[in-house]
Amino acid sequence: MSENISDLIEILKQMEALNSEIQGSAIVSVQGLPICSVLSRDVNDGIVSAMSAAILSVSERAVEELARGELKRILIEGKDGIIILSRAGSNAILCVLCKASASLGMVFLTIQNVSKKISLMLD
Amino acid sequence: MSENISDLIEILKQMEALNSEIQGSAIVSVQGLPICSVLSRDVNDGIVSAMSAAILSVSERAVEELARGELKRILIEGKDGIIILSRAGSNAILCVLCKASASLGMVFLTIQNVSKKISLMLD
Repeated sequence: MSENISDLIEILKQMEALNSEIQGSAIVSVQGLPICSVLSRDVNDGIVSAMSAAILSVSERAVEELARGELKRILIEGKDGIIILSRAGSNAILCVLCKASASLGMVFLTIQNVSKKISLMLD
Repeated sequence: MSENISDLIEILKQMEALNSEIQGSAIVSVQGLPICSVLSRDVNDGIVSAMSAAILSVSERAVEELARGELKRILIEGKDGIIILSRAGSNAILCVLCKASASLGMVFLTIQNVSKKISLMLD
């Protein structure tokens, strides 16, 4: 574990720079507390963190109950945009916001790579 | 509103017959109670219903907080399969289980059509 907030923020900023469909992102602890984020100012990262952890926790129960195997990813699609939650190792969740029109295949690949990087830093 | 359990079950069975990647489905009330389902015997539809409503409710809060517009769909991806929740009108949620390898574009279109049919029956 070689955690460093500025390195984590750098990873999030790079992800946004590489994929213009990504509009914001946050790393959240599995307990629902903020680790770091690159979100617009009007978003409360405390609420984002708590909700991410709550959704992840109920979803983990759901995949277990319905025999879907280990949880990989959650996508929440709204009319004006998408929220993607991805487990990033055993301690953290990566939360990504993207446009409603995003190419999900590409965004999923980006998130998969970034989640791996984060898990190497925080596990 | 022209609700009839056997008509609803027929819609779910037709959906599975048309798309072989769909492995099971349930219609759940927004309060988290079962309406009807076509699920394998070892799945407890009471638990599925409660979890679906819980995930939908937290996700609705999340799309609102993160300015993503009205909630359309939730996808929960496990290693061995996928759960998709879709709002079916103001009273019900359609919960669909499919294979991990499913062509999501096709499954999404199918679910969108079926959700519309259900909302016409239950709204």
